[in-house]
Amino acid sequence: MPSNTAKEISHTSEVRVRFAETDPLGIVWHGNYIQYFEDGRESFGRHHGISYLDQKAHNFATPIVSSQCEHKLPLTYGDVATIKTTYVDSAAAKMIFKYEIYNPKGQVVCTGKTVQVFVALGGELSLTAPDFFKDWKLKMGLTV
Amino acid sequence: MPSNTAKEISHTSEVRVRFAETDPLGIVWHGNYIQYFEDGRESFGRHHGISYLDQKAHNFATPIVSSQCEHKLPLTYGDVATIKTTYVDSAAAKMIFKYEIYNPKGQVVCTGKTVQVFVALGGELSLTAPDFFKDWKLKMGLTV
Amino acid sequence: MPSNTAKEISHTSEVRVRFAETDPLGIVWHGNYIQYFEDGRESFGRHHGISYLDQKAHNFATPIVSSQCEHKLPLTYGDVATIKTTYVDSAAAKMIFKYEIYNPKGQVVCTGKTVQVFVALGGELSLTAPDFFKDWKLKMGLTV
Amino acid sequence: MPSNTAKEISHTSEVRVRFAETDPLGIVWHGNYIQYFEDGRESFGRHHGISYLDQKAHNFATPIVSSQCEHKLPLTYGDVATIKTTYVDSAAAKMIFKYEIYNPKGQVVCTGKTVQVFVALGGELSLTAPDFFKDWKLKMGLTV
Repeated sequence: MPSNTAKEISHTSEVRVRFAETDPLGIVWHGNYIQYFEDGRESFGRHHGISYLDQKAHNFATPIVSSQCEHKLPLTYGDVATIKTTYVDSAAAKMIFKYEIYNPKGQVVCTGKTVQVFVALGGELSLTAPDFFKDWKLKMGLTV
Repeated sequence: MPSNTAKEISHTSEVRVRFAETDPLGIVWHGNYIQYFEDGRESFGRHHGISYLDQKAHNFATPIVSSQCEHKLPLTYGDVATIKTTYVDSAAAKMIFKYEIYNPKGQVVCTGKTVQVFVALGGELSLTAPDFFKDWKLKMGLTV
Repeated sequence: MPSNTAKEISHTSEVRVRFAETDPLGIVWHGNYIQYFEDGRESFGRHHGISYLDQKAHNFATPIVSSQCEHKLPLTYGDVATIKTTYVDSAAAKMIFKYEIYNPKGQVVCTGKTVQVFVALGGELSLTAPDFFKDWKLKMGLTV
Repeated sequence: MPSNTAKEISHTSEVRVRFAETDPLGIVWHGNYIQYFEDGRESFGRHHGISYLDQKAHNFATPIVSSQCEHKLPLTYGDVATIKTTYVDSAAAKMIFKYEIYNPKGQVVCTGKTVQVFVALGGELSLTAPDFFKDWKLKMGLTV
């Protein structure tokens, strides 16, 4: 269910809460939302050709250098949550994603953001955008 | 190794990186730092009498409402990291902690921050600081 | 895709390998197969009305008392595996499940087995099958 | 605290239960015991020079091909458990470990067993014991 705007590209996916992801309070342990963000980001990546495996095929990895998470409501076992992942355009050699996670009632339970940089596999931080990423941005109509 | 200043209280603890916490890049997967923050926070809490179990004994829980993590360097399997957890004083009905994680060479690999609120067990968000928390702050010389 | 035989009931479901579930060898860390077994068991349970939440609605939990796992082949990131979960009929007050996990090529990567017992919530081990479980077995044509 | 017998070598270590390792029933989720077994095995390995990193230094990995776990009692948050890891001697090109996990009262909560085989890094299953493993067995007074 992708939708394109001038500078943002969104994609939604679903995640089913696992029993082991919930804690003695009966709710998803807060650290697991970082996993749900990755689930959303990779679903976006598979859909748009910029997943971890796509990056690896070009000998790059994109480690997370920053993540933020704001919790509004809990998720509990049995919930199938919806993850809205949004690529935020930027001229920097970075990938910036925003996230909104919704419970089955459609309420926002969590928002977040991650920033990734490009590192050549077995090598160095890339200070400029790699060619495959520029190609991807061109294809997607983003700032190159 | 606690050290007290006017408005901050710090505590350090250690965590050994688990094999299953590292990823195909050979480094700790970024989401696991949220666990290390909790390890540091709970070690602080056991030392200073404000851990999850101390809170539970007063019929309160303190869910995380916000977390941030900035990554500088990786940790790899075999590393024993040091977590510096710092309580940040505040007049609000919140617990705010900052974190610095160091690799065995003493380099900062990660910094972060979490914010917790007070919820009565089985009940409601507490808009004012619970009595046990006020007592704790008094004991620690913090703002009540 | 359920199939019934005299004494066994099978159900298949799928699981997508998460990046954080793979290790520095590039394969799923062995302990994560216990999670995949639970994914299969709960998918079976939702399909056949005997999931964790169904049990809870009858004030029972079914803790695992035994698990086994035999590994044949690895799974890697990007794989969507198929879990075949089979309920093994028994006259005892137990739930016994067998598992077979297949890679995208249809090869068996892992087999396993778990045994669960019935515990009244907040209470005792049940030495006899609870009524809701007997009802379920009757409905499913199993040994009561 | 190692103790040697004719054919078995034991080692004990401790693990503190993490909050996120416990489930809505307030007890450690069963799959996490596989992690505790690895914690015990790696503590044994560091003590006796046969850890994952020792193996890697000889260009070998030892994937788990079989694991078993029998649960007797639960562990809860706050528990510091003791893991007794025992190397079981064998003439095969395998590493076999048994585990006993004890709660703070000294009661057995869990027993288990794992079997590992030798795989050359980036390569093949080794049908015979690698030289570094034979050397280790000789040093330890085990069957070569």
